Amino acid sequence: MSMKSYLDMNAQELAAELAAVSARYAALKAVPRSLNMARGKPNPAQLDLSMEMLALDPASLTHTAKGADTRNYGEPTGIDECKALFADVLGVEPGNIIVGGQSSLNLMYDCVVRALLLGVYGGAEPWGRQGPLKFLCPVPGYDRHFAVTAEFGFELINIPMLPTGPDMALVKKYVESDPSVKGIWCVPKYSNPSGITYSDDTVRAFAALKPAADDFRIFWDNAYCVHTFEEEGDELLNIFDACREAGSEDMVYEFASTSKITFGGAGVSVIAASENNIKLLSKQLGIQTIGHDKINQLRHVLFLKDAAGVKAHMKKHAAIIKPKFDCVLNALDSEIAPLGIASWNRPRGGYFVAYEGLPGTAARCVGLCKEAGMVLTGAGAPFPYGKDPKDNVIRIAPTFPSLEELEQAMELFCVAAKLAALEVLSAK
Amino acid sequence: MSMKSYLDMNAQELAAELAAVSARYAALKAVPRSLNMARGKPNPAQLDLSMEMLALDPASLTHTAKGADTRNYGEPTGIDECKALFADVLGVEPGNIIVGGQSSLNLMYDCVVRALLLGVYGGAEPWGRQGPLKFLCPVPGYDRHFAVTAEFGFELINIPMLPTGPDMALVKKYVESDPSVKGIWCVPKYSNPSGITYSDDTVRAFAALKPAADDFRIFWDNAYCVHTFEEEGDELLNIFDACREAGSEDMVYEFASTSKITFGGAGVSVIAASENNIKLLSKQLGIQTIGHDKINQLRHVLFLKDAAGVKAHMKKHAAIIKPKFDCVLNALDSEIAPLGIASWNRPRGGYFVAYEGLPGTAARCVGLCKEAGMVLTGAGAPFPYGKDPKDNVIRIAPTFPSLEELEQAMELFCVAAKLAALEVLSAK
Repeated sequence: MSMKSYLDMNAQELAAELAAVSARYAALKAVPRSLNMARGKPNPAQLDLSMEMLALDPASLTHTAKGADTRNYGEPTGIDECKALFADVLGVEPGNIIVGGQSSLNLMYDCVVRALLLGVYGGAEPWGRQGPLKFLCPVPGYDRHFAVTAEFGFELINIPMLPTGPDMALVKKYVESDPSVKGIWCVPKYSNPSGITYSDDTVRAFAALKPAADDFRIFWDNAYCVHTFEEEGDELLNIFDACREAGSEDMVYEFASTSKITFGGAGVSVIAASENNIKLLSKQLGIQTIGHDKINQLRHVLFLKDAAGVKAHMKKHAAIIKPKFDCVLNALDSEIAPLGIASWNRPRGGYFVAYEGLPGTAARCVGLCKEAGMVLTGAGAPFPYGKDPKDNVIRIAPTFPSLEELEQAMELFCVAAKLAALEVLSAK
Repeated sequence: MSMKSYLDMNAQELAAELAAVSARYAALKAVPRSLNMARGKPNPAQLDLSMEMLALDPASLTHTAKGADTRNYGEPTGIDECKALFADVLGVEPGNIIVGGQSSLNLMYDCVVRALLLGVYGGAEPWGRQGPLKFLCPVPGYDRHFAVTAEFGFELINIPMLPTGPDMALVKKYVESDPSVKGIWCVPKYSNPSGITYSDDTVRAFAALKPAADDFRIFWDNAYCVHTFEEEGDELLNIFDACREAGSEDMVYEFASTSKITFGGAGVSVIAASENNIKLLSKQLGIQTIGHDKINQLRHVLFLKDAAGVKAHMKKHAAIIKPKFDCVLNALDSEIAPLGIASWNRPRGGYFVAYEGLPGTAARCVGLCKEAGMVLTGAGAPFPYGKDPKDNVIRIAPTFPSLEELEQAMELFCVAAKLAALEVLSAK
């Protein structure tokens, strides 16, 4: 197989390369395999890092510092210790935190639902009484975010991601001119799947928005706030600091969770928000639930302790994750880069690499991998309605497979990517 | 103080008794105390019964029988073992169970929310698009049920509780004639607060309902399904068995939780429903959350094992609870019964005694207790909008205080109840 740029090949060269890559693909396909890079799941070795949390002295888990029995009803917005932990991590006050259950997605879903049925602080009436609504979706982005707003019938608007974050000129245009635009999904640090961290200017531009709607909300899903795997991570400007300057603190719901810190299946999630928002959300929460699992909150506090403890713990994750990202990037650098058929990000944290190939190749590449025994995130998944307008983005999730599996996976992926590119180029 | 029925007293006798009881109340009030019988909370001794669950071998908690890693994402509707446990307890198939998080109230809230925004199986359109809606509320009932439907603007209709359960003639009339009636709240066993278990005829009458609405749902909150404290408990007919005969299985959502089996603050909840309902709810759940805490589900399975294990465990609760109910009933029997001013239930399980006094005395009695340092559930709480039409029902929750506190509490309660009754009778 050639290392010459495919874009510089003539028809004859393309045909020869297509034959060579097809043969290589057929050979790989002939070997049975079952690989999965579909979701950003922690690997069992990462989960093992938190096993100590399951071995804590039972007697240490029953009461908070102020004497509340974690085993009983009460403390519906979470225990003080857990609020303090997340406040330290996110750089906010404990009073601006509500602790949720296992899934931050569920917290976001609940915020959308309550906004639809009950309204948000400062809004004249519930979203759901205002006719057709729109939600802004930076793309590529997180499929499950988009699915929530699709479920409730929002028109989802694609906002291109730039290296600095979402195209803020476009965001501003939509938000400031159209009162039916009710929110925007953001993963501001190590974004899913582009791995981009929003620049300070982008964060300030968010804080400076003057929405046409009186009930617009930024859904700031800081899912990867501490998920750095390089020695030096990205720095994200604190959105609430920026909002305080702009007087727009009520505009933001920030979310985070320990799903990729401790256990994906048994973590703790939080929402951070302004005093006004927390007050209303707490009231609404009091109707919804008798509270979330306080024993698990205390487990997390005893295990992680504070922001420094979280940071130290994340270094252990980094030691497992970093070689996997290196494996992916090395394969792409050596196998794909010379061919001129794709670009990709080089994240310093998070869970994904976004592969951007030639238009019209993503679904084919994913299909080729699938036929050969490897499941990738469906092409189109990082876009609203699962529709990638250029059909060229593939989300690569390196964390779950072992390093050995990942090497095999990337070999197959690169061959499939080449084949898909060659088919498109040959058809021209 | 007299043991003669207040109803047989003449004005002079009433005046003398009022003076005597007032003096006694003043004496009690002079002694500082801080008692709380406001909510049906387990006592710490009950919570201690499940401490073993926090001491399980961490290695036993990480994988399900079929190999799913409980620490990771996946199994959004719950792990098989936990479904099997609740299926055994509720007498349904594991496939008819979805396991939730810590709060069954939250599951109910979610069912209302999804019905409003997305609709239920078989419904032509979401509840929320159908104009003003009604919900039936057997009274006295559970304040937090009523609060959920009040939050979303349903008109709440009082349905009187009879010794056999809700007045089914009235329920049938509403449900079968009015398509805006979308549901009914039920606590079918050891009802909150009356302690009544619905008769077989009542359960069959529910199953036989032919709702005017195509999207009517019975919210069957079997909160106290295994919470018997007498040697012989009540038997509740399985609603799904009755529905199968009537062909109405899609009409029922059944709920249960371990909040009063293991930990009020860290239990597991479930919804049981027909195949059609489970299928749609699972799909909707897939948008809402990445799943609930599977480690905690496995903890519960390892600790409780099966229905027999649950029953054995509940006997330990009974040993703690039964003397408290006896204390309450003995006090009422000896102090109040001869006076002819109230009636109450004698539950064989559950968490409450419903005290029904003379009309116009409940709020006064609760107020008198409060002034003397004892918090009771607010008068009116067991009714929609907090409005007890006769102002005569008080929910007594005996479980949380110690036996010693409870004796003091009941002494105060009986004096306050007498005083409230005497004031009303004297004013006539």
